Amino acid sequence: MNASPLPLVAAPPRAPFADWLSGTNDITGVFLSASRVPGLINLAGGLPEPETFPVAEVAELARQAILTYPQDTLGYGPVAGLPELRDCLAARFSTSGLTLTRDNILITTSGMQGLELIGKVLLEPGSRVAAQFPTYLGALDAWRPRNPTYRNIVLEDPGFDPIKALTGAQFAYAVPNFSNPTGLLVDTDTRRGLVAAAHRTGTWLIEDDPYGALLYDGAPLPHMIELAAEFEPGQPYAGPVVYMGTLSKQIAPGLRVGWVIAAPEMIAALTIAKQGSDMCTSGVTQRIALRAIESGLLDALRPRIVDLYRARRDALCAALADTASDWLDWQIPVGGMFIWAKVKDETIDTDRLLPACLTQGLCISPSSVFDALGQNKRFIRLNFTLNPPEKLALGVERLVAALKSIRPEQV
Amino acid sequence: MNASPLPLVAAPPRAPFADWLSGTNDITGVFLSASRVPGLINLAGGLPEPETFPVAEVAELARQAILTYPQDTLGYGPVAGLPELRDCLAARFSTSGLTLTRDNILITTSGMQGLELIGKVLLEPGSRVAAQFPTYLGALDAWRPRNPTYRNIVLEDPGFDPIKALTGAQFAYAVPNFSNPTGLLVDTDTRRGLVAAAHRTGTWLIEDDPYGALLYDGAPLPHMIELAAEFEPGQPYAGPVVYMGTLSKQIAPGLRVGWVIAAPEMIAALTIAKQGSDMCTSGVTQRIALRAIESGLLDALRPRIVDLYRARRDALCAALADTASDWLDWQIPVGGMFIWAKVKDETIDTDRLLPACLTQGLCISPSSVFDALGQNKRFIRLNFTLNPPEKLALGVERLVAALKSIRPEQV
Repeated sequence: MNASPLPLVAAPPRAPFADWLSGTNDITGVFLSASRVPGLINLAGGLPEPETFPVAEVAELARQAILTYPQDTLGYGPVAGLPELRDCLAARFSTSGLTLTRDNILITTSGMQGLELIGKVLLEPGSRVAAQFPTYLGALDAWRPRNPTYRNIVLEDPGFDPIKALTGAQFAYAVPNFSNPTGLLVDTDTRRGLVAAAHRTGTWLIEDDPYGALLYDGAPLPHMIELAAEFEPGQPYAGPVVYMGTLSKQIAPGLRVGWVIAAPEMIAALTIAKQGSDMCTSGVTQRIALRAIESGLLDALRPRIVDLYRARRDALCAALADTASDWLDWQIPVGGMFIWAKVKDETIDTDRLLPACLTQGLCISPSSVFDALGQNKRFIRLNFTLNPPEKLALGVERLVAALKSIRPEQV
Repeated sequence: MNASPLPLVAAPPRAPFADWLSGTNDITGVFLSASRVPGLINLAGGLPEPETFPVAEVAELARQAILTYPQDTLGYGPVAGLPELRDCLAARFSTSGLTLTRDNILITTSGMQGLELIGKVLLEPGSRVAAQFPTYLGALDAWRPRNPTYRNIVLEDPGFDPIKALTGAQFAYAVPNFSNPTGLLVDTDTRRGLVAAAHRTGTWLIEDDPYGALLYDGAPLPHMIELAAEFEPGQPYAGPVVYMGTLSKQIAPGLRVGWVIAAPEMIAALTIAKQGSDMCTSGVTQRIALRAIESGLLDALRPRIVDLYRARRDALCAALADTASDWLDWQIPVGGMFIWAKVKDETIDTDRLLPACLTQGLCISPSSVFDALGQNKRFIRLNFTLNPPEKLALGVERLVAALKSIRPEQV
């Protein structure tokens, strides 16, 4: 080993990390380490049931895609995505009122990347985001490096005023289908009001829809991007709604394939941002995604997944009703992956409930992580898609034990 | 179709895009559209020869990976990467003087993502980057959303002072193996000087090494991260050099798998940033990468690729010597993918040369795109890896025709 080329003088501190890193929380780290604890029941994340992954089919699609399209799969691809996949999604999401072409579609490396790119093209430090409250943890992660400010908007509030909510914001963010974390379905009138307000105020409206396919009761409601198209009937889509989708909840998260549907000017801006983020999405996973859609695999999987998750939702709600109704209030969601439950005892802080649950062998999500300001301590989010009914019931027993363990002394 | 829910009043303009988008150029767009022109010879990009892709092997690796590891490949994975792949890379890059563990390794969705994450964790608006000049176009793209300022550093300048170069910068950026665009090999003394300066100044030193495997003459020089380890002999690596690698030039860009090797504190910061960028890299492509390394495929490919590209480098240099020596000066690079050529006629602006080349059926890279300030108009970059010798020779003929076409009138 060589001697050091310079005498070891006291070195100055390393150049510091960017300020936004000090504002992060380690909740995802807690979730991930918790998931390695033997016997722990994980109701915290938004994970699909691995048994729903079409393993043999995807393995064969991967092999065929690489052999048949070596240049598309193994070479660099266009920044905006494989043209055939963009065309396929344009056709799939077009309706009698919504006219989409390839220029309306960007392929992203996961839905998360779509959120990240929106932050890059729309946010300067201090820019305002009007975010459905409580909101998706990952969206807060994606935008934190841009240092935005947040206006919490509560869509189900009887006095909700969409014009007031959107005015002065760069964009508004909503998960109208079974919002994460609340599981709420945003009704059509509210969707229409948001879209009209986006047109009136110039504020972009982000419609994040990872869960839309996971509908257990009733008929689907129109996407906001469909309602936006009504403003310019018969025209190629150029409206203010930016729709985001993903295959993560429908086929498999490991593909990391998502998409953005938006006005061509927005797609062009996002494409410039994507070029500097990862240049292009893997052609291997894009070709798998394309064949999974074209072959009918995606649509064939849906009823099986919906039936499985509906039964698990019902099992978790039944267990809560049996065991936890003295402790919690909740509503039954018509879709998605989560139950959002309010702790009845106002003295219980759900940030404190998390470690108590971990002690009992259970992981849950406390509400503070879905609040840009970290102040909401009254709720928890419970996932029902990852575990079978008997584990969901055991999880609820552990939750009640945890609640009891931190209940203030009776006086 | 429904009527619009509100009367169509004059809408305000849409919320504007972030300022950095106005500072981009469309050069990559020019390259991509050019590549679709029939008969055009593309010497502009940094593309590998598709015939080097191990198509059948990767197709089989993909199928096996998905069948054998369905959860790893199709589920969500750890943000920092597949643990087995992190371990494999730690072992592969460890030397007698450089001790690496999993905590020193982050898997990225392409080398580009590594650059993007560095910008996120180290740059605030106005932060200073000391960038080897001229520099990689993609790095400028990756950092543009963070609005840094640049100090151009010229490593081969006889008066180059690394302490002065690095002082006050958040990080320094260099491609020491066959720099993009110049093809220069940074010598060991200069590497050592940069590493010592990083220790002395606290400035992080980014060692971007996409081309290291493409060495055509002589022995490899030590990585700067190896030289940095000499400062703390016997210790797990915790130094200021951040090393970046990728499989794009060694197996196939379509996998989009790269890695960062750095001090654990840097890996932890980058991991937080990656969580908000794309959550995790596809398990499908990570498992393919792991098996390609473990099975020996990666190392077996290298001699074939090196022989092919060496012959093409020699062919391009021979064609230049035969046809273009009145017009251009250049040096023969010992590795990489590019010839960097200076136009002898000082009145010729290489931004103007690009459209003249396109008219002749040739695409080249003008030097302005490798200059953060866009002021360097004297050079062009020529790629030699994508085209066979006869096309390289034809490309040089077209280049000379283009040069003649824009030569100022003789007076």
